[in-house]
Amino acid sequence: MKLGFLGPEGTFSEQAAITYCAEAELVPIASIEEVADAVESGEIDEGIVPIENSLFGSIIPVLDFLIKAEKSRIKFELAIPVEQCLISEPDMDLKKITRIYSHPQALGQCRAYLANNFPGVDLVASLSTAGSVADMLLSEEPAAAIAPYRAAEIHHATVVERGVEDGNSNFTRFAVLGHSDHTPTGHDKTSLAFWFSSDAPGTLYQALGLFSNRGINLSKIESRPTGESLGTYVFLADISGHRNDDAVSAALSDLVEITSKLKILGSYPQMPDMRSTPTD
Amino acid sequence: MKLGFLGPEGTFSEQAAITYCAEAELVPIASIEEVADAVESGEIDEGIVPIENSLFGSIIPVLDFLIKAEKSRIKFELAIPVEQCLISEPDMDLKKITRIYSHPQALGQCRAYLANNFPGVDLVASLSTAGSVADMLLSEEPAAAIAPYRAAEIHHATVVERGVEDGNSNFTRFAVLGHSDHTPTGHDKTSLAFWFSSDAPGTLYQALGLFSNRGINLSKIESRPTGESLGTYVFLADISGHRNDDAVSAALSDLVEITSKLKILGSYPQMPDMRSTPTD
Repeated sequence: MKLGFLGPEGTFSEQAAITYCAEAELVPIASIEEVADAVESGEIDEGIVPIENSLFGSIIPVLDFLIKAEKSRIKFELAIPVEQCLISEPDMDLKKITRIYSHPQALGQCRAYLANNFPGVDLVASLSTAGSVADMLLSEEPAAAIAPYRAAEIHHATVVERGVEDGNSNFTRFAVLGHSDHTPTGHDKTSLAFWFSSDAPGTLYQALGLFSNRGINLSKIESRPTGESLGTYVFLADISGHRNDDAVSAALSDLVEITSKLKILGSYPQMPDMRSTPTD
Repeated sequence: MKLGFLGPEGTFSEQAAITYCAEAELVPIASIEEVADAVESGEIDEGIVPIENSLFGSIIPVLDFLIKAEKSRIKFELAIPVEQCLISEPDMDLKKITRIYSHPQALGQCRAYLANNFPGVDLVASLSTAGSVADMLLSEEPAAAIAPYRAAEIHHATVVERGVEDGNSNFTRFAVLGHSDHTPTGHDKTSLAFWFSSDAPGTLYQALGLFSNRGINLSKIESRPTGESLGTYVFLADISGHRNDDAVSAALSDLVEITSKLKILGSYPQMPDMRSTPTD
């Protein structure tokens, strides 16, 4: 099986791909859009893309793709802990370090740690966290890098300290995109997108009633402007159950009647809430 | 008036700050969290922070702050077009360029443009788009930078081409945080956060009914796990009207009865939908 992921190697996306299917032929791809396109065109069998993270943000390119996609569906999701590490060459004397390389976003995530432990050290931007380890190894000055554990493994560098990001650890949720969604497991969820032709107050209220009346839980709801005309929204919802379950299937039949368009993005096994640990 | 913004100078945040209030004493601050904290502590009068963008993503740190804040409220919002420029030294021969500097995110946004116009050129990471212009000016090789127009102005560099980002132009929405929200203007919106003690299906349905029955429109709804315990959500909603309007005020009184907590993040003038232009 060819499994595309948001490259390069050594990123959290590669880690998610290995966690999902270690036996797959892993294909690093440069952007989320290109991973999604490669699934849609059949160039790869499945693709794994970040879909939600409290620091890096946006699931928007993935959702935009799924809304437009003809063949691709969400078939699985998994959460990977985001843990940044301080990485250096073996036997580096930390007191001598004058430069620390990373992606600016990762440097931002570790701002307090860096200020406390390496005051005055030069922070140098790299194109990716994984690439920062390569940059560090080429540095003429004594240097370190901030990157995932996996990036140190790939480059045979030393992990000096784990979990150096400020604040509590968090998770990135990844979606596996495939040419079909998942068969029912008895503990599933279904992702939907739907549109209304009228923007009268109460259309969403009416839609949610279709789920509520059947005891179907809503684990996510989000409205986004469609970009098509003023005040036109698409609603993205995750509901409990598989699209083949009787209650869900009946609710979706009714939903078709009151929406201008309904798209099922996929039914797949429900994962535990990734942000269920106390954060402070 | 001391107005904090997400620095450094030359970013879209500085542009938003100037657009909002050119007379203010502008204070560049290193992170969204620090801008918010400086408003809360009274160190600055108001702070301007990005709250929504289709490329850069996340409003989450701002919302997390507003949920916890004791004094700060949203008092204004404005949208700024995101337009990346190719910037170089005056009279640079573009054919000689061997390096292009920018924040990795901006390089990603301009991937197709760079591949078509500068194949094989070295892409070099900078800590910020504004900083990439400074990096370019110090480069020993013929170089260019990708950054906002304002960054070229600050560094007296030349804008070679505007709007070099791939795809259609988009906007970043900024929120102005202050020690109070805005007085009613007759065309306002109100941002809310609310929590339910029960996660029974139908609690959100019931809440939306309170708005729907009074003809109050919902321009945004979003659910987020609170991080406190499994399956606990906070709902973020934007509704039409000012919290002092009769209908809104009555709906909010009823909402208090069915939620475990309700927080009004602010009432402020409604802006036109930033994504109202056709995107494709």
